[in-house]
Amino acid sequence: MLIREAQSGDERAIHGLIQALAEYERAPDEVINTPEQLRIDLFEDKICDALVVTTDNDLVVGFALYYTSYSTWKGRCLYLEDFYVLPEYRRGGIGGRLFQQVVSIAKERGVKRMDWQVLEWNEPALEFYKKHEAILDPEWVNGRLFF
Amino acid sequence: MLIREAQSGDERAIHGLIQALAEYERAPDEVINTPEQLRIDLFEDKICDALVVTTDNDLVVGFALYYTSYSTWKGRCLYLEDFYVLPEYRRGGIGGRLFQQVVSIAKERGVKRMDWQVLEWNEPALEFYKKHEAILDPEWVNGRLFF
Repeated sequence: MLIREAQSGDERAIHGLIQALAEYERAPDEVINTPEQLRIDLFEDKICDALVVTTDNDLVVGFALYYTSYSTWKGRCLYLEDFYVLPEYRRGGIGGRLFQQVVSIAKERGVKRMDWQVLEWNEPALEFYKKHEAILDPEWVNGRLFF
Repeated sequence: MLIREAQSGDERAIHGLIQALAEYERAPDEVINTPEQLRIDLFEDKICDALVVTTDNDLVVGFALYYTSYSTWKGRCLYLEDFYVLPEYRRGGIGGRLFQQVVSIAKERGVKRMDWQVLEWNEPALEFYKKHEAILDPEWVNGRLFF
């Protein structure tokens, strides 16, 4: 399996993985984003970036989507919005390689911190992040307004 | 008291408020950001925006700092990174007015969701956000790596 930058044409596969992850996260009806909007946001307006994991025949089976965020305490940060590999392709440390590639991009961008969120009941993910020496902080509550 | 867009020259006052909020949040040593870096990020590179609350003699006593973030589920969102009014100036509903002005900006930008975080023990803030009909979701844990 290979890791490469997402490119125009990958939006449909990425959208499918976003939906698969939302289902795993028990929120199957929350995805209102579309492949076409993703294409604009990733490849035209470039407000976020993505890496994809592909098989030998270029089937997209995993992705990481991230953007530069901002902390008043630290300055520029990298926010890892989504990170997912289809369960049946999790082998050979591909998840770890994908995560480390995002870490490398964060370092290249010179940010002070990389952030993401994980569901409190998602034990495999919590274990994965602990193994990667992440700090896991349950002290903050998400506030949200929908429009 | 007035609410206006932050402008070059406000960075020192905003930095002071960021430090005051970090102290309230029991993290006084976490602020490595500087007034000069804030000036660049807010007014030169424009990677975030801020509103300030001022007294009649233009003393900055509160602020809200925000940027456009991204949700794979919803598309573009507005992230409210910091929101603070000095305790001694909290009167006449100024906090509510500041919050509602950020909500208006989110609607103008056409985002689908506005997000922020609040400490689980910060009862006055939790009450404030409930009053503003926010959804408060404690199910997500923050993951972090520092560089």
